[in-house]
Amino acid sequence: MNRPLLNCDMGESLGAWRMGADEAVMPHVDCANIACGFHASDPGTMRRTVALALAHGVRIGAHPSYPDLVGFGRRSMACTPEEVEDMVLYQLGALDGLCRAEGGRASYVKPHGALYNDMMKRPELLRAVLRALAGYGGGLALMLLARRDNVEAEALAAEAGVPLLFEAFADRGYDAQGHLLARDLPGAVHHDPARVVAQALALARGEALTASDGSPLRLRVDTLCVHGDNEASIAAVKAIREALG
Amino acid sequence: MNRPLLNCDMGESLGAWRMGADEAVMPHVDCANIACGFHASDPGTMRRTVALALAHGVRIGAHPSYPDLVGFGRRSMACTPEEVEDMVLYQLGALDGLCRAEGGRASYVKPHGALYNDMMKRPELLRAVLRALAGYGGGLALMLLARRDNVEAEALAAEAGVPLLFEAFADRGYDAQGHLLARDLPGAVHHDPARVVAQALALARGEALTASDGSPLRLRVDTLCVHGDNEASIAAVKAIREALG
Amino acid sequence: MNRPLLNCDMGESLGAWRMGADEAVMPHVDCANIACGFHASDPGTMRRTVALALAHGVRIGAHPSYPDLVGFGRRSMACTPEEVEDMVLYQLGALDGLCRAEGGRASYVKPHGALYNDMMKRPELLRAVLRALAGYGGGLALMLLARRDNVEAEALAAEAGVPLLFEAFADRGYDAQGHLLARDLPGAVHHDPARVVAQALALARGEALTASDGSPLRLRVDTLCVHGDNEASIAAVKAIREALG
Amino acid sequence: MNRPLLNCDMGESLGAWRMGADEAVMPHVDCANIACGFHASDPGTMRRTVALALAHGVRIGAHPSYPDLVGFGRRSMACTPEEVEDMVLYQLGALDGLCRAEGGRASYVKPHGALYNDMMKRPELLRAVLRALAGYGGGLALMLLARRDNVEAEALAAEAGVPLLFEAFADRGYDAQGHLLARDLPGAVHHDPARVVAQALALARGEALTASDGSPLRLRVDTLCVHGDNEASIAAVKAIREALG
Repeated sequence: MNRPLLNCDMGESLGAWRMGADEAVMPHVDCANIACGFHASDPGTMRRTVALALAHGVRIGAHPSYPDLVGFGRRSMACTPEEVEDMVLYQLGALDGLCRAEGGRASYVKPHGALYNDMMKRPELLRAVLRALAGYGGGLALMLLARRDNVEAEALAAEAGVPLLFEAFADRGYDAQGHLLARDLPGAVHHDPARVVAQALALARGEALTASDGSPLRLRVDTLCVHGDNEASIAAVKAIREALG
Repeated sequence: MNRPLLNCDMGESLGAWRMGADEAVMPHVDCANIACGFHASDPGTMRRTVALALAHGVRIGAHPSYPDLVGFGRRSMACTPEEVEDMVLYQLGALDGLCRAEGGRASYVKPHGALYNDMMKRPELLRAVLRALAGYGGGLALMLLARRDNVEAEALAAEAGVPLLFEAFADRGYDAQGHLLARDLPGAVHHDPARVVAQALALARGEALTASDGSPLRLRVDTLCVHGDNEASIAAVKAIREALG
Repeated sequence: MNRPLLNCDMGESLGAWRMGADEAVMPHVDCANIACGFHASDPGTMRRTVALALAHGVRIGAHPSYPDLVGFGRRSMACTPEEVEDMVLYQLGALDGLCRAEGGRASYVKPHGALYNDMMKRPELLRAVLRALAGYGGGLALMLLARRDNVEAEALAAEAGVPLLFEAFADRGYDAQGHLLARDLPGAVHHDPARVVAQALALARGEALTASDGSPLRLRVDTLCVHGDNEASIAAVKAIREALG
Repeated sequence: MNRPLLNCDMGESLGAWRMGADEAVMPHVDCANIACGFHASDPGTMRRTVALALAHGVRIGAHPSYPDLVGFGRRSMACTPEEVEDMVLYQLGALDGLCRAEGGRASYVKPHGALYNDMMKRPELLRAVLRALAGYGGGLALMLLARRDNVEAEALAAEAGVPLLFEAFADRGYDAQGHLLARDLPGAVHHDPARVVAQALALARGEALTASDGSPLRLRVDTLCVHGDNEASIAAVKAIREALG
C-alpha cells in the first residue's frame, strides 16, 4: 500500500475574518490547497499560509475559484472555457508569486467549490483547466475527483501533458459512478470517526467501497481530502494519518 | 545618445469597458505596462494584451495598483509596507502567469497611479516594492520617476539587488527637484506637439530642462512615458519615435 | 393606440470607464433603467444619471444584477431565491438613496442581463424579485418580458401586489412562445432601421408579429426596450419615437 | 441622569465568515450600527441583522465605510467629499432597503473605521456626510465622536439640519482635546472591567474624566460605544447596562 497524500483546503481567511485552523492542521497533512483571493484569502493571508506550509514541508497547491467572495465560490457561474482558463492562470500565478518570495513554488492545482464541480461535469471546462496548467509550465499536476471511470479525464490530461492526482473522500458516501452523494441525501456524510478511518484505510488499500446502490466501487486514490475546520475534523485527520501509518 | 525606451500603460480595459487604443499604439512603443486587475483589467484582457505585446516584440511590465477599480487606482490608500509588498507580488505573479501561457515573461514592474506616487514619496514603500521584486526573482527591474537626486532610490535598489529604469515625461513640466508639477498648475502639461518632441529630444540627449523656478534640471532617463489614450497622444508617440531615430 | 413607453439601460459607466451615450439618448426616452453597482456603475455615476433623468422628466428604474463586474452581469450565477431577493433590495435601496438626494424616487425595477433571463425562466426567482418589490413598498412596478403566455407571471404579481410593465423589442426576432431568438440564430437581431420602426409600430398597435416558425405572435406591450449605445441606436430611438407619435 | 444609549457594531460577518456575537449582545444594546457591504456584510447578512435588531426593539443605524473588504475599512482612502457623500447615500439606501422589507427603517448613520476618523479630522468630509443625511431625508441623525470642543460639528450639523448623537467610550483613554489615545499608547485601552464601568458611570453623569495630561475632560454623551466581539466584551456590556440602571 502506497500511503495516499492528505490534502486540505487552507488560507481561507480574508482580511479580518478568520476561517479554518490552519496552524493546527498543517503539521498533519501533505498538501495545502491555498485559496487565491477569488473565493477567499488576500495577498497577506496567502503569503502567511505559504510560509506555514513551507515550514512544515507541505506541498503547495493553488485553489482557484470563480470570482465570488460573498458566495465563497460555491455558486456556479456561466463562464466560458476561455474565461476559466484565464482565471486559473491569474490565480495560480498570483499564488506562485507569493510562493517565490517565500522560497517555494506551487506544485499542483485543485479548483475550488463550484468550479471543481463544474470541471468534473463539463469536459470543455476540464480541458480549459488543463490548458491553463500546461500553459503555465513547470509540470504542475491537477487534483481532481476519482470516479469509477476516469478514462476521459486521463485521456484529456495525457493530451495536455498534465499529471493527475486523483482524490477521494474518507467521510463521504458515493453513488455507483463514483460521484459524491449530495449532502442532503442519507449517507452523504459520515460522522462516525471509526467509519471515516475505516473508509480511509479501504481507499488506501485499493479495496472497494460500497456505493449507495450496494454495488462495489473501486477508486484510484492518490490523495485523500481532509478538513481543518474545527477540532473534530482535525482529530479525524490525526486518526486517518495514524491509521495509514 | 542612447535612445530611451518608450513605455506606455496598456490593458486598461475591464470586461465590457474599453479604454486606450492598445492595438494602435503597441507597434510604436518598447515597453507595455500592463494593468493587473486591481485598478483595471481582468484575466482575459491581460492575456490579450500580453499576446499583443509579444506579437510586436514589446517588453512586458506589471503595472500593479492599490485595490480600487472605481477610483482607477488614483486614490491613495493607507496600506502598510507589508500589504504593498504582498499586493505587488500577487499582481506581478498573476500577470506573469498569463505571460507564461503566451510564451513570454514579465521583465519589469511599474507601480500605477497613487501607489506610484506614494512609493516616490515614502522610502518604506519603495523598499516594500523592491522587496517584492527581489523576492520574485528573475532579475526584474523597477521603473520609477527620474528626479534631480536619485541617490536614495539607487542605494535602496542596490541593497535589494534590483535594477532601476528611470522614466521621464516629454509632455510634463517639472519643479526644481524633478517632481512633476501638479496638473492644476500652469505649465504642468505640454499640449504643443513640437514642444513635446523637443523635450523628448532634450531628455534623450541628456540636456537640461528648465524647471518651473527657471533652474536647469538634468535627469537620468532610461525610458520616456507615452500615452495611447487617443489619436492625439498616438500621433505624439509616433513623432517622438521618429525624432529619436 | 396607447404609446408604449421607451425604456433604455443607463448609467453603465464605471469609474473612469465610459459606456453608453446617456446624455444623447435621455431626451428621447421615458424610462431609465439605471445600473446599481453590481454589473456596472458606481455611486457617483448613479447619482449623475439620476440627475440627468430627473432633468428630462424620465422615470427612474433600478437595474439590479448578479454581482459580476467583469462579466457585466451576463453570466448566470447559481444564487438562491433568498439571495436574489436580498440583492435586489440592496441595489434598489442604494439607487433610491441616490434618487432621494436628487429629489426623485425609483418607480420600477428591471433586472439586468442573466438575472433577467433567469427570472423569466424560473418562477421561484420571479417570486423572489416580486417579494423584494413588495417588501420595499411604495408601489414599484416590475418590468419584464412580454411573452405569448403571461398568465403565470400575472398571477404571481397579483399575489404579491406588484404592478407589471411588459416590455417588447422592436429590433429582435421572436419564437412562437414569445421568447427572444438567441443572438446567434438568423433573424435574431434586426439591423434595418425601417424594419425596426415597423415592428415598433406593430407592437404599439397590438398587431401580431410573425414568430420564427411563421405563426402569428401577439404581445401585451407596455414598454419598448431601446438602446443608447451608439449613434445608430440613438437614431433608431428617435425614429421609433417619431413613428409612435 | 439621562441613561446614554448603548451602540454596538453589528452585521460584520461576510458570506461564510462569521464575526461578532450579534445574537448574544443584541438584547443588551439600544442601537445597532449595521455594516453595509463596503467593509463587511452582504445583503443576506444585513437582512438577518436588521431582523434581529427589530426583534429586540433596537434602533438601526447604517455603518458605511470606504470600499475595502480586505482592509475592513480601516485604511484611509483619498476620496473626494463628493465621493464620500455618494458612497454614504448608496450604503444607507441599501441598508434601508433591507430594513423596509423587514418592516423597519434606519434612523441614524455612524461612519465606520477610517471614514469615521477622517470625518472627525476633515470638516469637508463631515460636511459631505451631513449632506448625504440631509439629502436622504427622514430626519436621520449622525453619530460621531464627542470631543472637548464640538462647536464646529454642531454648527455644520445645524446648517445641514441633521441631529447629532455624540458618542463616548467607557473603555478608552482620552487626550486633553477629547481624542481617543492611539492604541499603542499606554492607557489607551482599559482592560479592567471595574474601571470600564466606572468610566461609563462618570460619562453618564456628566462628570469629568481625567485626560492623558491630567486635565479634566467633560464630554457631551448621548451614547456609549460598546463591543460584541467576544464573551469578555459582552460581559462588559451587561455590567455597563446594569450600572447605568
